[in-house]
Amino acid sequence: MRTTPPLPPRINLREVGPRDGLQIERPIPTAEKLRLLDLLVRSGLKRIEATAFVSPRAVPAMADAREVAEALRQWPDVQWSALVASEGGAHRALEAGVRTIEYVVSAADGHSRANVKRTTAESLAGVGRIADLVHDAGGTCEVIVATAWDCPFDGPTPDDRVLNIAREAVSQGADALCLGDTIGTATPLRVVQLIGAVQEIAPRVPVGLHMHNTRGAGLACILAAMQIGVVDIDASIGGLGGCPFAPGASGNVPTEELVHLCEEMGVATGCDLDALVEAAGFAQQAVGRPLPSGVLKAGGRPGALSRVPGR
Amino acid sequence: MRTTPPLPPRINLREVGPRDGLQIERPIPTAEKLRLLDLLVRSGLKRIEATAFVSPRAVPAMADAREVAEALRQWPDVQWSALVASEGGAHRALEAGVRTIEYVVSAADGHSRANVKRTTAESLAGVGRIADLVHDAGGTCEVIVATAWDCPFDGPTPDDRVLNIAREAVSQGADALCLGDTIGTATPLRVVQLIGAVQEIAPRVPVGLHMHNTRGAGLACILAAMQIGVVDIDASIGGLGGCPFAPGASGNVPTEELVHLCEEMGVATGCDLDALVEAAGFAQQAVGRPLPSGVLKAGGRPGALSRVPGR
Repeated sequence: MRTTPPLPPRINLREVGPRDGLQIERPIPTAEKLRLLDLLVRSGLKRIEATAFVSPRAVPAMADAREVAEALRQWPDVQWSALVASEGGAHRALEAGVRTIEYVVSAADGHSRANVKRTTAESLAGVGRIADLVHDAGGTCEVIVATAWDCPFDGPTPDDRVLNIAREAVSQGADALCLGDTIGTATPLRVVQLIGAVQEIAPRVPVGLHMHNTRGAGLACILAAMQIGVVDIDASIGGLGGCPFAPGASGNVPTEELVHLCEEMGVATGCDLDALVEAAGFAQQAVGRPLPSGVLKAGGRPGALSRVPGR
Repeated sequence: MRTTPPLPPRINLREVGPRDGLQIERPIPTAEKLRLLDLLVRSGLKRIEATAFVSPRAVPAMADAREVAEALRQWPDVQWSALVASEGGAHRALEAGVRTIEYVVSAADGHSRANVKRTTAESLAGVGRIADLVHDAGGTCEVIVATAWDCPFDGPTPDDRVLNIAREAVSQGADALCLGDTIGTATPLRVVQLIGAVQEIAPRVPVGLHMHNTRGAGLACILAAMQIGVVDIDASIGGLGGCPFAPGASGNVPTEELVHLCEEMGVATGCDLDALVEAAGFAQQAVGRPLPSGVLKAGGRPGALSRVPGR
């Protein structure tokens, strides 16, 4: 009987809803954000992107980054991260106690200019200084490659631009990479092909995946990536999100849909599905609009057995 | 570099929106259904489930089955099918000119009773007479196994129940089989394991897949199935649908999401994506509520190249 490739025994899920999800929403009160973080922690998540240290004018929903970051020490077992777009942002994040810093480099100049008013090359040139700053504080620095497959302004992103960023970022000190499908256009073969090429160029750092679900293909892409051994995977509670500077983008793969998919296949996530559904329900209430997650609407598999066929 | 298994060069897509999609909606005028069928034909679809010959009291939206079926001869290049639940239904479908007949057998007694007021064994016993009737008219008879993975009433469906239906149905004359994930709970490993086992039991008939997208895993399941060579795949325009007798069920995988996924991977579908998006927009208007398809909202990949990496 033909079968599919084996999957990793577990994934290293990162929840990005509180940052990537909430950044496009009208600002919600900090107390509600902290309540959401508490629900996420209770669901078993161990890596959570909590906030972004960026311009409060450009992203008003992240204006309370410092307050959020300082509250994180109440959950010491979680690896909290914050996104930054500049050296100043990295400085503020470190000062507020965050030790896992994500720095975005858009692979396409069009998105890069819209997002941070700089070209790809200009953003890339900043990696070294930020990595040094983070390392001096005892932290780790991840470079997120936005528009790794397609750009809403420039169209398809040539692979070489992504591979060049990966090579440069690692040589400047990046401790991890993550490929972002900013407008949700990637499909499984393109994902496997590009992430495989990046892994070859950067064999010593984890290479993660950040899939927007704009065309419904997010979980299929993640399945294919897991088949080649990718375990660092982003998801967003309830499917919250989008990108304010990428027209047509929708939210990430919903965390609870990814956890349902993985756990049903015997791929451990460390998360409790019912607790995630509760957190997604809270997130939906907080943003005041229906979120796209199927598992939020339907729940897990009724009468599910813990036994997975063939394992 | 690790890679994923090769995919089939093409799939044998079946559009089920006009039946499985519309059956739960308030009845829409026959003229609108025919306009939808016309748009679907123009998009390049070659297999379309047009209607169901079932009780008009139980499914008022299919009360115009005869009128719809008789209009199909204007599109002779399409393989039109109709679903039936009884010998009488098969008789009426044949009389109206349909030659591809689908007969449903629910693998779980709970769903079977709710759906057709019979047990699985009672439905299964009807296959032979219906297949004979269809063959005498020069047609083909497919048995669709509903609740192949889980039942909303009985919980997980034991594999043996599905394998027994497959064995019996083929021995009674079924020309094809299709496994239905009625409440959208299946995940890739379960799909591959069960469809592989059915293919072993019934190596001489096509075994298709009918995935509801209730928990967002439909495309991931289809990707895994294509990796083991499955090519007979159902989808529903716009993601129309659900099941009136299966609480919590939502629509099938949206046709345009499946076509986007496949075409971007070099798997031919014979369909034009823009034409499908137009048809999905019309379906959305006809039912008067937003449909869940991401590709309907966002369109295809902007600036897509026809070249697929690695092919």
